[in-house]
Amino acid sequence: MGSEITLEQVCERLKEQDNILILAHQNPDGDTLGSCFALLFALQAMGKRARVECSDPFPPRYRFMFPNYVPEQFTEQFIVAADIADTQLFGKNSEKYTDRVDLCIDHHPSNTFYAKETYLVADAAATAEVVADVIDRLGVPLDLAMATCIYTGLSTDTGCFRFSNTTAKTHLIASRVIDLGVDNAEINREMFGRKTQSRIAIEREVYNTMEYHFGNKCAVICMTREMLEKAGADDSELEGVSTIPCQIEGVEVGVTLREKEDGFKVSLRTGKYIDASEICARLGGGGHARASGCFIADTLENAKKKVLDVVEQAFADAPANRLDTGIC
Amino acid sequence: MGSEITLEQVCERLKEQDNILILAHQNPDGDTLGSCFALLFALQAMGKRARVECSDPFPPRYRFMFPNYVPEQFTEQFIVAADIADTQLFGKNSEKYTDRVDLCIDHHPSNTFYAKETYLVADAAATAEVVADVIDRLGVPLDLAMATCIYTGLSTDTGCFRFSNTTAKTHLIASRVIDLGVDNAEINREMFGRKTQSRIAIEREVYNTMEYHFGNKCAVICMTREMLEKAGADDSELEGVSTIPCQIEGVEVGVTLREKEDGFKVSLRTGKYIDASEICARLGGGGHARASGCFIADTLENAKKKVLDVVEQAFADAPANRLDTGIC
Repeated sequence: MGSEITLEQVCERLKEQDNILILAHQNPDGDTLGSCFALLFALQAMGKRARVECSDPFPPRYRFMFPNYVPEQFTEQFIVAADIADTQLFGKNSEKYTDRVDLCIDHHPSNTFYAKETYLVADAAATAEVVADVIDRLGVPLDLAMATCIYTGLSTDTGCFRFSNTTAKTHLIASRVIDLGVDNAEINREMFGRKTQSRIAIEREVYNTMEYHFGNKCAVICMTREMLEKAGADDSELEGVSTIPCQIEGVEVGVTLREKEDGFKVSLRTGKYIDASEICARLGGGGHARASGCFIADTLENAKKKVLDVVEQAFADAPANRLDTGIC
Repeated sequence: MGSEITLEQVCERLKEQDNILILAHQNPDGDTLGSCFALLFALQAMGKRARVECSDPFPPRYRFMFPNYVPEQFTEQFIVAADIADTQLFGKNSEKYTDRVDLCIDHHPSNTFYAKETYLVADAAATAEVVADVIDRLGVPLDLAMATCIYTGLSTDTGCFRFSNTTAKTHLIASRVIDLGVDNAEINREMFGRKTQSRIAIEREVYNTMEYHFGNKCAVICMTREMLEKAGADDSELEGVSTIPCQIEGVEVGVTLREKEDGFKVSLRTGKYIDASEICARLGGGGHARASGCFIADTLENAKKKVLDVVEQAFADAPANRLDTGIC
C-alpha cells in the first residue's frame, strides 16, 4: 500500500518529471477523461511530453474535449492515474500498468492506495475538481481547453450540479471556468440531452410492465432478457432505470426485477420510512436503508410475489402515523 | 410606460417604504416565489412589515421555502412585483393591482414596463439572481431562509444549471448560498426528482406510438385525446414531451402530433441542418429554425402523412454532404 501525499508534493513530483503517461479508467466517463486531458494540457503548457491512455477507445461523445489529440510516442518515465479508485478499473489493455503507477489523483473514498503515492480528496465532487487545484498550484494559467475538460468532469459527475456531492466549491470552479468561455449549455446538451434509440426502446418496454400495489405506495418494474434483446439495449444503457419506480409521486417502495441466467436480481429503493435493507435481508440480500438488493432464483411471477409479500409486511409494520411518503 | 431605475434606486425606495405588498405571478414557479420570499425575509430583517400575495394558492411543493409563513394583515403602501413580465401574468385575484405597482424587479427581456419603476436585469438567469443583488445592496446579511429561496429560484429557472441562461454569476451565487447551509441536494430532489403517476402513464402511451422514418433520421410521436384521458394527464404534465423524439441520437427531425378538437397540432424540432420553420411554413405554420409548429385539420394518419411528405422533401433538398446529425 502506497502513501498519501499533499497537493504541494503532487506538484513537486509533476515538476520534476517528464514523459508522463496519464491513465483513465475503463469504460471512461466525463470525469476520468476531463481530469486526464486537463492535466495533459497543463503538463504540455509546462513544456513536458505527456500522453493519455485508456483500456477502451475514447467514446465519440467526449471527443469535443480533445478534438485534435494525437498521442505522443515516448517511453513513459512517470505514470499518473486519474479518477481510478482500484486496479480492477484499469481494464484489460492497461493491466500492465497496475503495479507501476507513481501517482494517483482521485476523489473516491473507496480508493485502495494501489499507487506509490496517492492524492485523495474524498469530499471533492469530481476528480476534475482536484485537478483544477493541482493546475492552480502548478502555477499554470487555466486556458479554455483545460476549463472545458474541468467543467465536463464536474457536470457529468454531479448530474449537472444536482446530486448531493455538489458543494460550494464545485459551483465556484464552475463559475470560474464559465468565465473563461466554456460553452456550458452546449456541453450539457451533449451530456444530458440525448438518449439512444435502444434506451428509448427499453424505457418503453419497462413502462409497459409498471404495476402499482398497496394503494400506489409501491411501484414495480421488470426487465427480462427478452425485453433487453428486443430493445437492442446493453448494460451501459440501463443506468438509472431502477430509479424510475421510486421517482413517482406517492411511491414509498420502488422495486426493479431484472432477469439473470438463473433468476431475478431485485433492486429496492425506498422513500422516507421503509427500510430497504430490512426487506432485502429477509430475502437473503442487503444494502443501505434507502437502496438495497437481493437475488431470487425463481420465475418472474414467483419472484415478484416473494418481494411483494415482504413489502406488504413492511408497510403493515410501519408506524400507523407515518402517512407521509416521499422520494426513494 | 414606467421608467427604468438602478439597483441603488431600488434600495432607496425599499428603505423609505413600509407595509410592502410583494406580488408573485399566477401559476407560481420556484423563481417568482423564491424571489418574493427572499425579499420578504430581507424586508422583515430590516424591521418592515411585508406580505406576499399570488393570484393562485402557493403550491405545496414550494412551501419548504416558507414553512411558517403567516401573511401579515396591513393596508399596502408600496407594491413590488417580482418576476412578473406583463400585467397579463398577474392572474384574476391580483388583477386589482395591475395599475398600482410601484416597483417591478425582473429578468425577462419581454418585460412591458407596466410598473411605475422597473429594475430589469435581462441577462440574469433568474429574478432570484437580481434579488440577491438587491439584498446585498440593502446591506442585509443573507440568512439560510433567504439563501434557500434564492437557490430554489436559480435552480428551477436554469433546469438545475443546465440551460444556456446559466452564467458564471449564477454559479457564484449558488456557491455562496450553499456555503450558508442550503440543502441543495434535497431541493433538487424535490424539484427535479419526481414524476406524477399520470406523467409516467402518458410517457408510456407516447413511447408506444414512436415511429422512425428515413433511416432513423426522423422520429414521430403522437398524443391523442384518448391517450391523455386514459393516462389521466392534464396539460401541466405534458411539459417537455415534444422534446422526446429529437433527444434521440441520430434524429435530425422530431415530430409530435397532438390531437385537438378538429385536427392535430404539430410540433417540429430539428437538429443541425434541417430548417423546421421552412417545413412548417409549407404546412401553413411557422416558428424558429429549430422549433416550429403548424396545425393540420385532418385524421391522425393523414396528418402524419402530410408532415412526413414535407420532411422527406426537406431531407432530399438538404446538401448531400451534410451527413452529421445532432440534437434538435
